[in-house]
Amino acid sequence: MRLACVRTSCLASFPLLPSRAHAFGRTHPFAPHGIGSFKPERLQLAALLPCPLSGQRMYAVVGATVTTSEASRGPASAGPPPPITEESIDYNPPRGTRDFAPDEMRLRSWLFQRFREVSRLFAFEEVDFPVLESEALFVRKAGEEITQQLYNFEDKSGRRVSLRPELTPSLARLVLQKGKGLPFPVKWFAIGQCWRYERMTRGRRREHYQWNMDILGISGVEAEAELLAAIVTFFKKVGITSEDVGIRVSNRKVLQSVLGRFGVPNESFAAVCVVVDKIEKIARDEVEGELLKLGVSKDAADGILSALSLRTLAELEALLGSENEAATELKQLFALVDVYGFSDWLSFDASVVRGLAYYTGTVFEGFDKAGKLRAICGGGRYDRLLSTFGGEDTPACGFGFGDAVIVELLKERQLLPALQQDVDCIVFSLEDTLRPQAGLVARTLRDAGYAVELVLESKKMKWAFKHAERLQAKHLVLLGSSEWERGCVRIKNLISREEKDVAIDELVTEVDMLKE
Amino acid sequence: MRLACVRTSCLASFPLLPSRAHAFGRTHPFAPHGIGSFKPERLQLAALLPCPLSGQRMYAVVGATVTTSEASRGPASAGPPPPITEESIDYNPPRGTRDFAPDEMRLRSWLFQRFREVSRLFAFEEVDFPVLESEALFVRKAGEEITQQLYNFEDKSGRRVSLRPELTPSLARLVLQKGKGLPFPVKWFAIGQCWRYERMTRGRRREHYQWNMDILGISGVEAEAELLAAIVTFFKKVGITSEDVGIRVSNRKVLQSVLGRFGVPNESFAAVCVVVDKIEKIARDEVEGELLKLGVSKDAADGILSALSLRTLAELEALLGSENEAATELKQLFALVDVYGFSDWLSFDASVVRGLAYYTGTVFEGFDKAGKLRAICGGGRYDRLLSTFGGEDTPACGFGFGDAVIVELLKERQLLPALQQDVDCIVFSLEDTLRPQAGLVARTLRDAGYAVELVLESKKMKWAFKHAERLQAKHLVLLGSSEWERGCVRIKNLISREEKDVAIDELVTEVDMLKE
Repeated sequence: MRLACVRTSCLASFPLLPSRAHAFGRTHPFAPHGIGSFKPERLQLAALLPCPLSGQRMYAVVGATVTTSEASRGPASAGPPPPITEESIDYNPPRGTRDFAPDEMRLRSWLFQRFREVSRLFAFEEVDFPVLESEALFVRKAGEEITQQLYNFEDKSGRRVSLRPELTPSLARLVLQKGKGLPFPVKWFAIGQCWRYERMTRGRRREHYQWNMDILGISGVEAEAELLAAIVTFFKKVGITSEDVGIRVSNRKVLQSVLGRFGVPNESFAAVCVVVDKIEKIARDEVEGELLKLGVSKDAADGILSALSLRTLAELEALLGSENEAATELKQLFALVDVYGFSDWLSFDASVVRGLAYYTGTVFEGFDKAGKLRAICGGGRYDRLLSTFGGEDTPACGFGFGDAVIVELLKERQLLPALQQDVDCIVFSLEDTLRPQAGLVARTLRDAGYAVELVLESKKMKWAFKHAERLQAKHLVLLGSSEWERGCVRIKNLISREEKDVAIDELVTEVDMLKE
Repeated sequence: MRLACVRTSCLASFPLLPSRAHAFGRTHPFAPHGIGSFKPERLQLAALLPCPLSGQRMYAVVGATVTTSEASRGPASAGPPPPITEESIDYNPPRGTRDFAPDEMRLRSWLFQRFREVSRLFAFEEVDFPVLESEALFVRKAGEEITQQLYNFEDKSGRRVSLRPELTPSLARLVLQKGKGLPFPVKWFAIGQCWRYERMTRGRRREHYQWNMDILGISGVEAEAELLAAIVTFFKKVGITSEDVGIRVSNRKVLQSVLGRFGVPNESFAAVCVVVDKIEKIARDEVEGELLKLGVSKDAADGILSALSLRTLAELEALLGSENEAATELKQLFALVDVYGFSDWLSFDASVVRGLAYYTGTVFEGFDKAGKLRAICGGGRYDRLLSTFGGEDTPACGFGFGDAVIVELLKERQLLPALQQDVDCIVFSLEDTLRPQAGLVARTLRDAGYAVELVLESKKMKWAFKHAERLQAKHLVLLGSSEWERGCVRIKNLISREEKDVAIDELVTEVDMLKE
């Protein structure tokens, strides 16, 4: 449904901006001293994308929305839309970004709470870094998409900076900054917004949130097992089973061994991995062509591509020998996971390489078994990232888990919770003169920990009931002058529909009782 | 202490970057293909600021830190620091920004949780907006500092964008976007990072987090009373009393009335407010000079400045008459607050104007009564902001509450909580061969909701105890081969120091019991 109005072939690692096309038509004059000008390319986009709800094509104009059905009444309908003045402001967030209205925010908070809860169970500590970093932190020349699509610019003092495309380099930077004072192993998690920029945006989003968990200082695959256990724990918490989702695991040392056999130099390793990672997205011929461009021989390219087809550890051992490091690490990891008790979620798949240049060992990705969605999460070992920043080699591994694909999956599986604002009481004064007293009543209930919606203006009784219903509040507390003179308020239980008068100083006790 | 190395006179609304000077000396080669160049102005800063811990002046060089005490051994010590190669990466976050290592993050989470809890008690719904917005949203020509220090730039398609300096314009934009479908009144809160850029940064921070609460659709001062009640509720929750903090309240209609008397045109109103707001920061003469520049007569300027000195509603009524709108609204507000029961926190102070151009009515700011800190929070009524964006006039008010000054205040009052990572159990295998089983034990405890630190590598018993102590864990769960063969683990209560062997399938029950 969300994909109805654009070419699905354009989709990559970020999902569509959901309401882009629909809300696009509305612009308004920015009255006093606006400077926003309305660019022709916006109009092209607006013209390009039909409204997903009505199916009508929409044009952006100042102060009104004109659809093609209206525009086509006159002979000028095929021509350009009405002229746009310089004075306009767009009510939508910048292209490729999202607002979080209360509904969307509740869902985001729900998701982040689960990320945080799993991280707590695994005794990881939360960290954060600036959303804006020095560009140098993200520049690598292995040809990764992530570094080619940096949302970078020059600040006013001429420094090259970038909105972060991922969290791992910042985490590595912070570990290096802390230096020897930091007790190892480090187990950190972060939830942060990440950005990218494409010149041709094709309706793709420019930001998403990512949950990261990272372990530094552990060289054994126990670290990978711990991260995989955390991912599985998260899936279970949100109701996803191993019928829905799997995690493909491989090890970059598989490719390294193959490259070694064909005498491909170590310097090409990262670039080869980045190319090979595209195997699911572009044709095998193209991958082979790109490998040849990197100076990999035809034989080596064939060897690489044939190794990628392996799906069992037995085949892997047959190819590389049972003493091979990749095979050994993978066997250890699967053995650990077997005892931990979640091997039903995992499978070996040599085609998993991941697109980040810095992975050196284990790599993995979560995927939906129906095969409809992009990777749900991904990660791996990056033992040499810190040394590329000038630190010492430090064993490290981690994963990133975006906020977009998981929500698509939960929606599809009907596992998204019905989230509602949590309001305990509505406090409402029948007469305007009692509004200050209503404030006092609200304060009393809030001091006792109750979420209280205080009605701040003159409203009819009927409105108060509708309002209570909309908020699914539990109690309506009414102030009327005759009750108030007796030192009472009327309290109505909105579930049982019972009501009674309660003395002010017994109000909290009464609500406590009704709660049980 | 934090201010020791810079001129305190440079401080304004953001605090100092705490660890800037200290950590500055460390840079390292960005080994593979770094492009970060080290700008001379950084060296000037590094040379300017002595290390606050050691007192030594520090220079940034590649791969090592050289202090002046070392550098002064040779005759070249007074000259420029050693040459810097192009290949370097700074371990610090970009100038004026912060990392949140676990300690700082725990404090931030603690603070945000209290912001959220108060918002919940008042039945406000959380929202969020992009940190990057169209520049047009923030451009106003009243001369505000906030619009003069936009962190703005041109994106790759030539659009003018800005990291948001505040949240209110985005909130107004989202309300307009939702249009008629949005039920009023709107009660929204947001916690978001805000940015600014000064060319001459003088050690000031470029980002902070802000908690906002806003009410739209209520024209009566009941809305202001509700917001003030929320602020007071927050202060009480963190242990601050009305001895520590007060809230000064005024109304922009006071100034408007005075301007009206002197025939100053309405168009000058916002600019006059922005100038008058500087009265606490710059000399009275300068304020008068700036008012004259705006075309305000000498008489009017005197009238304005003398009105600002009013401190009682009686004086205000004497000046403007008891039927004056400003006086009426202020009286209503103070009457409401009196019944709500927090009038000890509030005082009328006509010098409060606030620096934002869009306020139209009530304005207020929280301040520390010791007079050491900048404003803790501030807000007011902005009934015409939505119409400047092309919407209808909509009654609205809100406040912003930063994350910096409140932490300074809490620190000074020794009200900052001792926050510690929350770990229930440490699971540790005495023999390496039992490490997979340790994973299983960890999983069992985590499934029961316990936060478990699983030791992932070979460590001595002594290390495990030290580690448990550092994390203040409650239980140490030990796996030894003789116990394991009997189907048991040893569990040690780290508070009582008692220990015993427990069967695996009774482990959770045992930990549950120890918890009570």
